[in-house]
Amino acid sequence: MLKVCWEGGKEEVYPYVWLKDNCRCPSCYHKVSHSRLTFIEETDLKAEPISVQVIEGGQQVEVVWQDVHHSTYGTEWLDSRGFSEESRQARDSRYRLERKFWGSESLDDYPEVSFKEVITDDVALLEWLRQLEVYGFVKVKDAPAEIGQVRLLAERIAFIRKTHYGEDFTVQAKPDPSNVAYLNGPLQLHADLPYYEYKPGVQFIHCITQYEGVGGDSQITDAIHVARQLQKECPEHYRLLTDTPVDWFDIGTDETGEFYKLLRLPVICTDKNGQIRRINMSQPQRDSHFSVPPGEVTAWYAALVAYYRLLSDPKYCLQFKMTPGTIITFDNLRIVHGRTGYFSGPGERHVQGCYLDWDEVRSRRRVLETKIDPYRSLYNQ
Amino acid sequence: MLKVCWEGGKEEVYPYVWLKDNCRCPSCYHKVSHSRLTFIEETDLKAEPISVQVIEGGQQVEVVWQDVHHSTYGTEWLDSRGFSEESRQARDSRYRLERKFWGSESLDDYPEVSFKEVITDDVALLEWLRQLEVYGFVKVKDAPAEIGQVRLLAERIAFIRKTHYGEDFTVQAKPDPSNVAYLNGPLQLHADLPYYEYKPGVQFIHCITQYEGVGGDSQITDAIHVARQLQKECPEHYRLLTDTPVDWFDIGTDETGEFYKLLRLPVICTDKNGQIRRINMSQPQRDSHFSVPPGEVTAWYAALVAYYRLLSDPKYCLQFKMTPGTIITFDNLRIVHGRTGYFSGPGERHVQGCYLDWDEVRSRRRVLETKIDPYRSLYNQ
Repeated sequence: MLKVCWEGGKEEVYPYVWLKDNCRCPSCYHKVSHSRLTFIEETDLKAEPISVQVIEGGQQVEVVWQDVHHSTYGTEWLDSRGFSEESRQARDSRYRLERKFWGSESLDDYPEVSFKEVITDDVALLEWLRQLEVYGFVKVKDAPAEIGQVRLLAERIAFIRKTHYGEDFTVQAKPDPSNVAYLNGPLQLHADLPYYEYKPGVQFIHCITQYEGVGGDSQITDAIHVARQLQKECPEHYRLLTDTPVDWFDIGTDETGEFYKLLRLPVICTDKNGQIRRINMSQPQRDSHFSVPPGEVTAWYAALVAYYRLLSDPKYCLQFKMTPGTIITFDNLRIVHGRTGYFSGPGERHVQGCYLDWDEVRSRRRVLETKIDPYRSLYNQ
Repeated sequence: MLKVCWEGGKEEVYPYVWLKDNCRCPSCYHKVSHSRLTFIEETDLKAEPISVQVIEGGQQVEVVWQDVHHSTYGTEWLDSRGFSEESRQARDSRYRLERKFWGSESLDDYPEVSFKEVITDDVALLEWLRQLEVYGFVKVKDAPAEIGQVRLLAERIAFIRKTHYGEDFTVQAKPDPSNVAYLNGPLQLHADLPYYEYKPGVQFIHCITQYEGVGGDSQITDAIHVARQLQKECPEHYRLLTDTPVDWFDIGTDETGEFYKLLRLPVICTDKNGQIRRINMSQPQRDSHFSVPPGEVTAWYAALVAYYRLLSDPKYCLQFKMTPGTIITFDNLRIVHGRTGYFSGPGERHVQGCYLDWDEVRSRRRVLETKIDPYRSLYNQ
């Protein structure tokens, strides 16, 4: 391995095979497309240098390989690609921001940003996207209380994520509803679209008009935080909710034609390292088909009820009434949301919403960081 | 639990809590939206019947619960929701079809369908979607060799999956390319868009004009099949490729603006049950940032090269030259594809492609099955 010592004492080692694989010469690397041009089978697994020199006053390292290929690496380029644990950790926040979990009691203030600032100012936009990734929930205030503003906000980030319901949706009490969200009874805590393997990651809900009587409050809970509490307080419930596959479904016809969605995933989805990646919760979209051995069924229901009780506990669940012009923005893989019931005729409460995917939201955050935040843009060299 | 014995000897047991949770009466269940109307906290975990009766000549089972709630279940409805292993397995193919893995040698014929039949006939459409799910690769033949036909084919299934490159793409040799696919050198075996967490699941490539000289052949390998072979032949290589996170990236500007995609996933992605879910392979889109301890780097490269050699082995890799009008359709989570090099000026070889997500493709398959295939539609009762 190549050992590099910087002034100030920092040291890094670079495996030769990696160095040669990342040669920046024009026959190995296509700069315009940031692309490696070499062939995988020809990777030089036994790469060894015959000479290594620091040149250009410490700005470059020149390596001549045993096959006489020459490579030159910038020392800053090397610095931002260190293999030490410290260097690797320094890069993590470019990839994903660390989540801060919260209950309503531990959250001092609601994370809030101004619609006008976010629309006009890239620094405010970046701050919003960071908070959304860290807390999973941000209120966007003072948007015009008009149809279409929620799309404007979403498209400030990226293109809208389409589902079989189209690109945006409206929730308003209406007769003969095809979805329970249009009724004006309480809407239990849920995450949207649990039957999508590619469940939209970020959801926006814009309050255009609000019911003025009692009720119609919004509820928001950090369901991953609560799942971690459940794991501590009742590991057996947690195990049942992470191990038991549930059928989530949606059958019907909408803007894009007929659909028949079906997905089999636990309520609490963990990856192979045990990290919680996604919460599925939706009483109406849980299928009556339940493909588990009958002996496990009753214990699973008890775990579901216990988890739901925690989710709706005021210790964890934020409750507030949206005012016209407010847009709540949240992580649909992490947050469950609901609405208390209200008693009104059609048309009095009106919200519009849409989705984005985390791929596009994080991409936009990184594009902004490389422009705005020179320290973090180190990663991009 | 409720024990039900059908004529002919079949028996099933149904847990009471599940039965009551799935009461179909109008106050528990909203038929139009297929939605449960009950509250999760009110789930009757101790549900017990005070009477159970078979009524209407064996067509219905009526249950009166201890809280005097009445429920009635159709016996066919119960039959299609059995908890026995046999009944659960019978439902699996509605959810997902079982994959059949293949190498070029084990595949007797290329799976093929006719463009005209698929466009005009729902039975042919269903057959195509089933083959695509089972084999991960189907040739669609005799499409008009014109721009736009690939969109027509995709929209026969569902709406197109958008990426930061837009809704469709064109690959043609052109000067000053921003992506190596536009060069006319060989395109190594790869899967598209490895930097997307929500990597588009199904890819279409339509040959509009073809280079007439030697070269420009298409290559297709079932990379999950090959990964399973690698696991048998060299478990340590397999372990390295399933455990080592790789940074996949794409930075640039296209139709939807600037993008900076970054995703950290192994080459072979397994779920917590050890099942292979996705293959990532792309020499140009593998980042030079590599966030693993330096001591693991060289062994990982050796595993990558070994896997790539198997992927390109003629025993596993299909090679054929697309003729104008052919559309190859394949699973982008499972298949790697490539193209041999060719020597020509711009404009001689021209393909157009687009993507769909598996959520929409499987949804369409199920919609068609409930119409066309009465046996399978059992699941939908």
